[in-house]
Amino acid sequence: MSEPKSIGVALFGAGRIGTIHAGNLARHPHASLRYVVDVHAPAAQSLAAVHGAQVATVEQALADASIGAVVIGSSTDTHADLIQRAAAAGKAIFCEKPVDLEVERARACAEAVRRAGVVCMIGFQRRFDPTFAALKQRLDAGEIGTPEMLVVTSRDPGPPPASYIARSGGVFKDMLIHDFDIFRWILGGEAVSVHATGGCPGMPEVAAAGDISHAAVTLRTRAGSLCQINTSRRAAYGYDQRFEVLGSKGLLQAGNVRPTEVVAWGEQAISCDKPEAFFLERYRAAYALEIEHFFDALVHGTPVRTTIEDGIKALELAELATRSWREGKALECAV
Amino acid sequence: MSEPKSIGVALFGAGRIGTIHAGNLARHPHASLRYVVDVHAPAAQSLAAVHGAQVATVEQALADASIGAVVIGSSTDTHADLIQRAAAAGKAIFCEKPVDLEVERARACAEAVRRAGVVCMIGFQRRFDPTFAALKQRLDAGEIGTPEMLVVTSRDPGPPPASYIARSGGVFKDMLIHDFDIFRWILGGEAVSVHATGGCPGMPEVAAAGDISHAAVTLRTRAGSLCQINTSRRAAYGYDQRFEVLGSKGLLQAGNVRPTEVVAWGEQAISCDKPEAFFLERYRAAYALEIEHFFDALVHGTPVRTTIEDGIKALELAELATRSWREGKALECAV
Amino acid sequence: MSEPKSIGVALFGAGRIGTIHAGNLARHPHASLRYVVDVHAPAAQSLAAVHGAQVATVEQALADASIGAVVIGSSTDTHADLIQRAAAAGKAIFCEKPVDLEVERARACAEAVRRAGVVCMIGFQRRFDPTFAALKQRLDAGEIGTPEMLVVTSRDPGPPPASYIARSGGVFKDMLIHDFDIFRWILGGEAVSVHATGGCPGMPEVAAAGDISHAAVTLRTRAGSLCQINTSRRAAYGYDQRFEVLGSKGLLQAGNVRPTEVVAWGEQAISCDKPEAFFLERYRAAYALEIEHFFDALVHGTPVRTTIEDGIKALELAELATRSWREGKALECAV
Amino acid sequence: MSEPKSIGVALFGAGRIGTIHAGNLARHPHASLRYVVDVHAPAAQSLAAVHGAQVATVEQALADASIGAVVIGSSTDTHADLIQRAAAAGKAIFCEKPVDLEVERARACAEAVRRAGVVCMIGFQRRFDPTFAALKQRLDAGEIGTPEMLVVTSRDPGPPPASYIARSGGVFKDMLIHDFDIFRWILGGEAVSVHATGGCPGMPEVAAAGDISHAAVTLRTRAGSLCQINTSRRAAYGYDQRFEVLGSKGLLQAGNVRPTEVVAWGEQAISCDKPEAFFLERYRAAYALEIEHFFDALVHGTPVRTTIEDGIKALELAELATRSWREGKALECAV
Repeated sequence: MSEPKSIGVALFGAGRIGTIHAGNLARHPHASLRYVVDVHAPAAQSLAAVHGAQVATVEQALADASIGAVVIGSSTDTHADLIQRAAAAGKAIFCEKPVDLEVERARACAEAVRRAGVVCMIGFQRRFDPTFAALKQRLDAGEIGTPEMLVVTSRDPGPPPASYIARSGGVFKDMLIHDFDIFRWILGGEAVSVHATGGCPGMPEVAAAGDISHAAVTLRTRAGSLCQINTSRRAAYGYDQRFEVLGSKGLLQAGNVRPTEVVAWGEQAISCDKPEAFFLERYRAAYALEIEHFFDALVHGTPVRTTIEDGIKALELAELATRSWREGKALECAV
Repeated sequence: MSEPKSIGVALFGAGRIGTIHAGNLARHPHASLRYVVDVHAPAAQSLAAVHGAQVATVEQALADASIGAVVIGSSTDTHADLIQRAAAAGKAIFCEKPVDLEVERARACAEAVRRAGVVCMIGFQRRFDPTFAALKQRLDAGEIGTPEMLVVTSRDPGPPPASYIARSGGVFKDMLIHDFDIFRWILGGEAVSVHATGGCPGMPEVAAAGDISHAAVTLRTRAGSLCQINTSRRAAYGYDQRFEVLGSKGLLQAGNVRPTEVVAWGEQAISCDKPEAFFLERYRAAYALEIEHFFDALVHGTPVRTTIEDGIKALELAELATRSWREGKALECAV
Repeated sequence: MSEPKSIGVALFGAGRIGTIHAGNLARHPHASLRYVVDVHAPAAQSLAAVHGAQVATVEQALADASIGAVVIGSSTDTHADLIQRAAAAGKAIFCEKPVDLEVERARACAEAVRRAGVVCMIGFQRRFDPTFAALKQRLDAGEIGTPEMLVVTSRDPGPPPASYIARSGGVFKDMLIHDFDIFRWILGGEAVSVHATGGCPGMPEVAAAGDISHAAVTLRTRAGSLCQINTSRRAAYGYDQRFEVLGSKGLLQAGNVRPTEVVAWGEQAISCDKPEAFFLERYRAAYALEIEHFFDALVHGTPVRTTIEDGIKALELAELATRSWREGKALECAV
Repeated sequence: MSEPKSIGVALFGAGRIGTIHAGNLARHPHASLRYVVDVHAPAAQSLAAVHGAQVATVEQALADASIGAVVIGSSTDTHADLIQRAAAAGKAIFCEKPVDLEVERARACAEAVRRAGVVCMIGFQRRFDPTFAALKQRLDAGEIGTPEMLVVTSRDPGPPPASYIARSGGVFKDMLIHDFDIFRWILGGEAVSVHATGGCPGMPEVAAAGDISHAAVTLRTRAGSLCQINTSRRAAYGYDQRFEVLGSKGLLQAGNVRPTEVVAWGEQAISCDKPEAFFLERYRAAYALEIEHFFDALVHGTPVRTTIEDGIKALELAELATRSWREGKALECAV
């Protein structure tokens, strides 16, 4: 077998998540970061310098025939446009979730991707988390029989600024889109009904921004399995990312990850570390593994595990949950 | 202070739970079991013999002026009648949950108790479980600030016979009535909305009996706090009774109790005991403590912690949840 | 089979441990507490009153032919004398550890017991602890193959008064005698060498009483398995009673027992309960089960599990460990 | 401040550990791997190719003035010679433990290092393990008061080949040298006495190689604190690396690290992952952090945390433990 060629990469977005992707793709033997694109020039320059890449505009990057793939880590409102342009330019696409805040626009992106015949992977990194992935593998191996009920706990350590919340699309699209993907991935079926409710206990600033800070979602699949998701934009003890799935033969739990395994026995209690602080720490390995998967798929011509269709399905659920909450009623899913 | 007199007790029901109550009241310094009443004479005789009590009819027991209290552990369909007759006879009443499967009839019992001015305690033993009670105490002490969200997992190890299910009032009244009480007790407020859904994944015999085996309930309080309850009539790993409450300053979890603290490190995994097998084992201490509380309250003239009003409120929520599931929609609570 | 007769019991010692034994034997269907004997008359009277027994002298109790068994829970320096007198009177004997602080005197007791042909059980209650007993059962069932190494952690929450320490026989006889019994029980063999060392870090009052507060003991069996015991007379976090045994196929750990299963997730850490406070709480079930075993053995004529020979073997190891510490060298065991 | 220059590095040893060091130093912004040296040419070539380095002889590498540091990961019997030659050449030295199997030769190395005035760090990577390091930091911050007792569990998943054991220097130098370093690091004092014993339960092939498979070591410091180390060359459940330190105000435990946080609740038990498989997995982060520390120290001119003196002290304890085991007696340490 001949040695695979290196894939030239343009990175859109030089912020927190862009920086992480840059570091991870630097480690892939067949990915080569050529361009960093960011509206904030100093950020682009600094990140490009670290990795021996160049600063470019979107046009320059997409026009370069040596670029085989783009990694989109810029702000949400740029995703759809960049996906469509990259697809038109024939580039393979890795894009952070969500595809877009509007379902229609996301569908147009999927259509563009299909027409162009390019690979498009959406960054549902949680599927690559070693704990979540091991659970899924054991579930698929039949360890607990048929899955019947999924309970997801998904809480941020603290809320983003009100200005961010106001433009975030709301808690269901902003935070829970990941959990809707987990639901589809773990239970392996689509929802037939969605119920969502919530409020802002103790967080009036979130209400003022038109959103809710705490939500409870219930989904049911055609096969009759159930899912409950609970979420909050604040957890005093850190970033809480757990789920457990009940099957006919047992239960599998995915727990939080702790920074260290120190346990202290004191006069008041026995205590261990809180969970990892936030998503950059909690999903450090997952971010590395998703990028590795994307480029491995490109190199070997194998399918990516989180497609743009997955992105749209999760977005549709987030849209339905938003409506269910606003209208105060359970909704059936169009199929 | 003069030494409190002994309280003569008549026990209705000599089955599993009656036997446990008999053992526990035998330990109370001021309770004296005089009569055991059961439609199944051998059971009554055998239990009476162990405790030096006599077999009697309901009439005999209630007519005896030396009987100060009755403990009702007979089948659910006898509760309302026995409560009303015991109230009319001026006896203090301890009655297993539920008061009745019909809300109206339960309300009539409460009215009878009020009119008679007798003490009536409903056996929501979970409030007396050492783990649950310690959590509640710490919550009330402000350890995690204001409670915002409660997640309850409540699963039986396996289903009762279909014949039992058919007469059980359904999963919401039969199993979840305890959890509705936990909701009211922990969040300290009444529900303004209830949503319930469910199904019978892998348990068609439950569907055939007109019930569901798996359910997901969501409640919201006026203060905006949320509660999710998940339940199933089967858990391969045993009796699963956990809840956790998120507050503005942290989280309190109440975990399962294990028979022993042995941990085995083997070639495949590190493992510990499954939870206690079922409610008789899991709530052994709780059953003892609730009976102790009841007789202590009688002796000292202090209020009981789980009143017949608590029994009715929990039943109303079970009724609403049943309707919500049947009608497929979220329901507002009448206030 | 005819119904077994009730066994009349005389209890020596009405202190903490005597009170516990009285409560436990009250629950045995074939034990009947008749006499309480204590040099402190009010204690004897009070305990006797609770159980409908009478206060008596040693002579009166042993002279009564209706007394089939004695339970010795008085101070250590009375054990040997009471064992010998009870044996001479033909009574079955349950005696708290240690038999005596002097090996020679303990052997004389064993000889008296043998001559009299009476049953004599020593209160090594830890063998009856549900966690320890379950571990032993799994070990015997071959779950981890052949045991190779035992690590025992045995720490008191705080030291007794210096006056007690001075008369205690030293840490090896006072505290570790239980752990030497655990060693023999778990590894199922006798020691061929003993090494002990220790000191009084931060506890000069213990040194002043001629004892050590912290000790490290190593034992080796003829079969080549090893045991390390670490102990201290102080643990800020409570009573620490754990052991773990490495076998050729795995490891079995016996952990501490916690009062409740509450877990708190706070801003600093995730914490659970400290271990039970001290031996009365930790071994509550074990004390009940050892008394049950003793009377069951008497009723059925089956052997007791912790004999006076076990008491002497453990005492011999404590004696050797004391010498090893004093002489600063490892000692071989006479066999 | 001017930008620090890059440090040219020669790596001795292209085996498992050399490969890990190569990967880690590739990530350091100021380390530049120039030469790979290994008696096995294909290994050297392959590793050099990955990192854009060249294959060289020891002489070539040490003669190159652009080489500022050497990393020694070759077999133990080459360490002393390479340290002495690298010191003579004025190179900074990072060397895997042990310095040498002979104390005298190790001391000669330390003398050579002192004379040359070069930096020399010994690869006691465990001090850099995030869990162990966090424990140490909390201990130093006074969280549990004064340390009084350390219990170390150190077990390999399985034995190396008999041929390796025969040349390994024995279990105390081969395995426990790390634990002797942990002892000195955690208790912060030198030993005044050492006792070691052991055997080969179920592992006659280890006895045949002149070594023991299971050992129990006890150390005492001048301050009176105690340390027990238990070890075995086999643990069916994987690589077991734990320690706990009792202080006057509490206990700090350092637990094993698990690959994932999946917990399975099944019909027999609740189980979680076994520990990481072996040292390469368990100490992955530690290996990265020690190399980072070494080059950071070189760049900033700050001291290294694990010096050649630490290497010698640990070796002296291993030597004493070996003698104690062979002679069957506790030994005092020369001071």
